Amino acid sequence: MHPRRREDRRRHPRRAEPSSDTAAHAYTYRHMPQVGGVVHTHSPYATAWAARAEPIPCVLTMIADEFGGDIPVGPFALIGDDSIGRGIVETLKDSRSPAVLMAGHGPFTIGKDARAAVKAAVLCEETARTVHLARQYGDPPRLHQEHIDALYARYQNVYGQKDPTA
Amino acid sequence: MHPRRREDRRRHPRRAEPSSDTAAHAYTYRHMPQVGGVVHTHSPYATAWAARAEPIPCVLTMIADEFGGDIPVGPFALIGDDSIGRGIVETLKDSRSPAVLMAGHGPFTIGKDARAAVKAAVLCEETARTVHLARQYGDPPRLHQEHIDALYARYQNVYGQKDPTA
Amino acid sequence: MHPRRREDRRRHPRRAEPSSDTAAHAYTYRHMPQVGGVVHTHSPYATAWAARAEPIPCVLTMIADEFGGDIPVGPFALIGDDSIGRGIVETLKDSRSPAVLMAGHGPFTIGKDARAAVKAAVLCEETARTVHLARQYGDPPRLHQEHIDALYARYQNVYGQKDPTA
Amino acid sequence: MHPRRREDRRRHPRRAEPSSDTAAHAYTYRHMPQVGGVVHTHSPYATAWAARAEPIPCVLTMIADEFGGDIPVGPFALIGDDSIGRGIVETLKDSRSPAVLMAGHGPFTIGKDARAAVKAAVLCEETARTVHLARQYGDPPRLHQEHIDALYARYQNVYGQKDPTA
Repeated sequence: MHPRRREDRRRHPRRAEPSSDTAAHAYTYRHMPQVGGVVHTHSPYATAWAARAEPIPCVLTMIADEFGGDIPVGPFALIGDDSIGRGIVETLKDSRSPAVLMAGHGPFTIGKDARAAVKAAVLCEETARTVHLARQYGDPPRLHQEHIDALYARYQNVYGQKDPTA
Repeated sequence: MHPRRREDRRRHPRRAEPSSDTAAHAYTYRHMPQVGGVVHTHSPYATAWAARAEPIPCVLTMIADEFGGDIPVGPFALIGDDSIGRGIVETLKDSRSPAVLMAGHGPFTIGKDARAAVKAAVLCEETARTVHLARQYGDPPRLHQEHIDALYARYQNVYGQKDPTA
Repeated sequence: MHPRRREDRRRHPRRAEPSSDTAAHAYTYRHMPQVGGVVHTHSPYATAWAARAEPIPCVLTMIADEFGGDIPVGPFALIGDDSIGRGIVETLKDSRSPAVLMAGHGPFTIGKDARAAVKAAVLCEETARTVHLARQYGDPPRLHQEHIDALYARYQNVYGQKDPTA
Repeated sequence: MHPRRREDRRRHPRRAEPSSDTAAHAYTYRHMPQVGGVVHTHSPYATAWAARAEPIPCVLTMIADEFGGDIPVGPFALIGDDSIGRGIVETLKDSRSPAVLMAGHGPFTIGKDARAAVKAAVLCEETARTVHLARQYGDPPRLHQEHIDALYARYQNVYGQKDPTA
């Protein structure tokens, strides 16, 4: 798991090279100004869904809460230029989900800062694992769309503590 | 895993909001006076059974010991009011089991205190995992009802150390 | 995991009761004088095989090394008297295996002392897990009997360090 | 996991015997002069593929990066002489992969030093686990050969930090 922040490059010791993922992350930051953190992992269950290029269906309240629907799949892309960044942006720009499963590669997540993107990566793996287990003995039903919408709205707006300094 | 105790709300720092799960837990305490702790988790194996809305069959002595039979399923319910509390109470009020799998959501457990409810949550996940694994290569047979009854009676009444202060 | 030694009962504080497993363990000690430790667990993969009452086939060199063949299944038995002890002794007395999967219950292992019995319990779970995974995509072939015999003889007699004090 | 280095035998206290795996490792060192470390594990997912004698297909970018293609299978061989070493060398001498799954036994990995061989063992298990999970719901497609070649070349030559002391 390697969270990236915009100022990372300035912090490297003098002779270090920027990560070979830099172009992909930079593309995402340029095209999604609300994004302040991008995380990429090869966590096993999420990567297994990515290997099959199969989205994770929204069959649990926790998926509606965190992802607002299914976790989508992005295109296969080679590493090293901004191809992965373009796949991330195209897949997530009109989605509630902060996670995308890049086909044949693994999950990428975004957030307003690194902490939010890490949280999304952890919950993406947790979701991938639980739905993997659930469907082993039958396809669990997708939640009704109006329930997904209600759960997502509540979780994003009501859940948790209000910031007392806001 | 978030155990809740009746006095939790008094302990929050002044400006903190009560958990959005408060109504569900409070309903359980009001309607099951013997209950002093409610625990809710999204532990992966138990949540996988919940996603399929499938009870966990009593195929092992440890399930008879701890749950006295199958672990039952409760209804799908939205989060935020006492719907989940009503589902818990309706499912568990005539059951030996201290655990219920709320459909499309995950396990809730009860106990005489927080410690007992946490123990039930841990054993619910352990049970969910072991039976998940067992049935992968054939359906393990349910224990005979008279064995379940004998095991449950022994475990609840004979097992463990007697409280020397009682 | 609860290793038991013969002198355990003398070590309990005065008012404590002996474990409800005492009769089962004591039966094993009385009938297998070479045994100095008995261990019982509900480890998930071994317990899953026990739920199906299915022996673990010897498909890997490590199983031949440690268990000398398949890990056998013992009868279903209620807890509290010496029924489990009788099942352990009947199953293991003519077997190379230090582990037995008691049907509908879980694994019991024996050893010359508690340490050896704990090692057998750990390796029983490791074996149960690996063969569970292996057969998910086809039945791995059992090793040839002469290979099993050669591996077992080498591991029991040649492997490891000779005791310099012997 | 037991990394072996050429000088290991000199470091043993005076009376200790060399490992019973010594002949297998020594054969590898003699026939592959670029190899400075050999690691052997019974890690569960890689060993499960070995039990079925099935190679792990290159279905993810991380497999192309690290292994340059499928992870191959070696022959069944008894332990104690150089049979395992011969199997390792025959399988890996014309392969990009630093890992071989020895049939009915488990994974062996090589590297320029012990650290590289340990890294290959960890990534072999990670790969074995992720592909095991992926194929549970359909066969993930193998990457195109030209993508595998491009990914492997980039990872081996471009990825990571250049050694500032070189």
